[in-house]
Amino acid sequence: MDSGEFRRLGHRLVEWVADYRDRLESMPVMSAVRPGEIKARFDSAPPEEGGRMEEALAALDRDVMPGITHWNHPAFFAYFPSNTSYASILGDLVASGLGVQGMSWETSPAATEVEEVAIDWLRQIVGLSPAWSGVVHDTASTASLCALLCARERASEFGQRGKGLQSGAAPLVVYASDQAHSSIEKATLLAGFGKAHLRLIESDERHAMKADQLERAIKQDLAAGLRPCAVVASVGTTGTTAVDPVAALAALAETHGLWLHVDAALAGTAMALPECRWLWEGIERADSVVFNPHKWMGIGFDFSAYYVRDPTHLIRVMSTNPSYLLTPHDAEVKNFRDWHLQLGRRFRALKLYFFLMDVGVEGLRTRLRRDLANAQWLAAQVDLAAEWERTAPVPFQTVCVRHVPADWPTFGRDESALAKHNLRIARAVNESGEAYVTPLALKGRQMIRVSIGAEGTKRRHVERVWALLQKAAQDEAVARRP
Amino acid sequence: MDSGEFRRLGHRLVEWVADYRDRLESMPVMSAVRPGEIKARFDSAPPEEGGRMEEALAALDRDVMPGITHWNHPAFFAYFPSNTSYASILGDLVASGLGVQGMSWETSPAATEVEEVAIDWLRQIVGLSPAWSGVVHDTASTASLCALLCARERASEFGQRGKGLQSGAAPLVVYASDQAHSSIEKATLLAGFGKAHLRLIESDERHAMKADQLERAIKQDLAAGLRPCAVVASVGTTGTTAVDPVAALAALAETHGLWLHVDAALAGTAMALPECRWLWEGIERADSVVFNPHKWMGIGFDFSAYYVRDPTHLIRVMSTNPSYLLTPHDAEVKNFRDWHLQLGRRFRALKLYFFLMDVGVEGLRTRLRRDLANAQWLAAQVDLAAEWERTAPVPFQTVCVRHVPADWPTFGRDESALAKHNLRIARAVNESGEAYVTPLALKGRQMIRVSIGAEGTKRRHVERVWALLQKAAQDEAVARRP
Repeated sequence: MDSGEFRRLGHRLVEWVADYRDRLESMPVMSAVRPGEIKARFDSAPPEEGGRMEEALAALDRDVMPGITHWNHPAFFAYFPSNTSYASILGDLVASGLGVQGMSWETSPAATEVEEVAIDWLRQIVGLSPAWSGVVHDTASTASLCALLCARERASEFGQRGKGLQSGAAPLVVYASDQAHSSIEKATLLAGFGKAHLRLIESDERHAMKADQLERAIKQDLAAGLRPCAVVASVGTTGTTAVDPVAALAALAETHGLWLHVDAALAGTAMALPECRWLWEGIERADSVVFNPHKWMGIGFDFSAYYVRDPTHLIRVMSTNPSYLLTPHDAEVKNFRDWHLQLGRRFRALKLYFFLMDVGVEGLRTRLRRDLANAQWLAAQVDLAAEWERTAPVPFQTVCVRHVPADWPTFGRDESALAKHNLRIARAVNESGEAYVTPLALKGRQMIRVSIGAEGTKRRHVERVWALLQKAAQDEAVARRP
Repeated sequence: MDSGEFRRLGHRLVEWVADYRDRLESMPVMSAVRPGEIKARFDSAPPEEGGRMEEALAALDRDVMPGITHWNHPAFFAYFPSNTSYASILGDLVASGLGVQGMSWETSPAATEVEEVAIDWLRQIVGLSPAWSGVVHDTASTASLCALLCARERASEFGQRGKGLQSGAAPLVVYASDQAHSSIEKATLLAGFGKAHLRLIESDERHAMKADQLERAIKQDLAAGLRPCAVVASVGTTGTTAVDPVAALAALAETHGLWLHVDAALAGTAMALPECRWLWEGIERADSVVFNPHKWMGIGFDFSAYYVRDPTHLIRVMSTNPSYLLTPHDAEVKNFRDWHLQLGRRFRALKLYFFLMDVGVEGLRTRLRRDLANAQWLAAQVDLAAEWERTAPVPFQTVCVRHVPADWPTFGRDESALAKHNLRIARAVNESGEAYVTPLALKGRQMIRVSIGAEGTKRRHVERVWALLQKAAQDEAVARRP
């Protein structure tokens, strides 16, 4: 492909993306294809001859699109908002076009320095003090893995440079709430601590970690000769956006010398709103914090923001310095390759830069407040509705609900049938194509998560998903009648 | 930004990318900015008000571009080719525009199934048997970390589900060549093995691992009560593209029950050429292999291809299955979130699909053969030139050279002065802006790597970098005269 053909196809695809976004609302949110259906539309062998871009674009419409679930759809209420703003798409286009590697400062100084600027803007936006140093990661999963590795190495005085976790020293222990994201368990296991040394601390009725239970667990482990190493505070759990008491956890972390990592993957974005910041009070006493601008904020995947208080420690854990990576400026610059797992680095900062220049901090705040208000509105409807329960507080934009029919056996008597009933409701909503929600089993109760915050989601979309949930519940009730 | 503004700016940026590529050759390859110079051009605080995209685009040209080192420049001979083809840019644009998450099959079936198709095409292209299952990773660093984690868990019978590496069992040991990429050491350390349990096996005069030394190390460790766990074979080392003897390593791995991981990050692409495949003879006996289509092949960063023989084992090591990630189709489909470290997944397969439809396997092979021929041409020139040494074999597209002036003290007598001399030569070439090469210190000798294979690199560019090297050497020689 020469630049002429690139121009021609590029213009077509810019129109294609804009057309796609314009007609998003008219499409079923969740793809209805069956397993294997998309695969079967493609040749099993690669094309020997090229020059088939027209065919590829036809396949995009004909064969790929039926298999797309539309994450930017205004009726997407599943998992988490995954906003890929227009400005972010443009920033990504420039990054792809440049095709530079920002692994070292020298390999493209602007990739490093624009990232320094943009990640520091983001720090200010969420109200973190200048004591934090930021870097762009790909996902919160890998950032949390980094955090636990840094904790491990601090506790073991850089054991990885010696015998690692195979030293035979007293085992290190990691603590998190029983509502922590699966990536925390994954990181603990991959970092080698062992599941036997992961304590999932009981959460309270608001699904936040019980600090007294954490303290008890730490003391038990100390008494057993183990070494408490790190605690992960969830600010906005995946299930219900519950918020662990960061300040109380920080106090315990300080007392016992634990690393405090804050996983605010979804909810960190809310900290752009000064009125939300009390929710992570104590954050300045943490060692590391991660949140995902690629979720609610509007920066296309992948873009995680990782902040640490001690970048020297992070670098010491992550750096290797072979001769082919040394450059004359290493003493004066940041080489972000030493700030995470990967070596190679895409120029991700452009997405954030374009986004912020396009919407401004005020524009971002306005949209986030809209989403919080929509969530409060839905919570109020659920609270007023007969036969519906709201199963968790709503500190952010996620509303967890479940339907308990009036003719149902006494509450709690047949939890498994009630679970099936709510799963059928969620499935009916999803298969309608009109909205997409996520079922969630929590502490033996089946609920339905309505995660609000797609860029295009207006009040009427929230009204509609609420109507769909009610209708599905009614249909199920009718279907159950003899 | 609404879709109208996106269309307007999108068209502008498509032209911008094409214009950039068209004038690439006229630009200095390496940015000449000083540390801090780019950063200083930006506000230290984020924009409160938005609507500033025009300003952002002006800043792109005025403030960002001077800090770009041009990886797709035809005179880019540093590090490794990092080809971001036009077709790949277009695939990435569509992926950004769709903004879907492919973490589970259900969250966008096409993202999973097109990836299954494309990664299997790639398997066929590099001549791997159907016994391999592939998945797209971001980088070889994380793929190799996955491989060592899988090795660790196989050797420990899923110790991570118990006491992990803190079990007190006999330590596990990892083996790699002393020429292995820094990411192998990093992965070993991060996976918790400890540097004390990493054996960097001596390489021969061709910089390939000595299989007999590996065998000796394994036996020593066994005698010392340690447990040999994994060996990493490098196919195309970063320094000189040396090739470890895969078949011999495979035999030892089989005898001693080691996991064999093959790191072919750069050179895997060469296996698209049947005439190169003898170089990794034995590959079918490995447990895992990674290579980076985001290097020489032409798929924009990031795109690593990771293949395993036992996907069930990989999934068992990497999976967590919280209720909010369960879907009705889990038994029938691939959920690629369980095939790597991250949970979130971008629709990367589109880049590869567009690329292959554009160039075809034959087009790819033609370009790769051009690059191999250019490397052989340069190697021949160096071999013929007085005062120049070729310091390594040239199995692929990288030529390692050094200049030893005729009036230099007897060879080997003043290695450090000779190192400085060659570093100055490399620096002079790089600062000329006409080409960009990477210095490399290897076994006490300073050399200069000329890594050929940017998409735009023709014979005349290789001729030019050779002329530049010779001129810089001459200038240095003159400068040294009293």
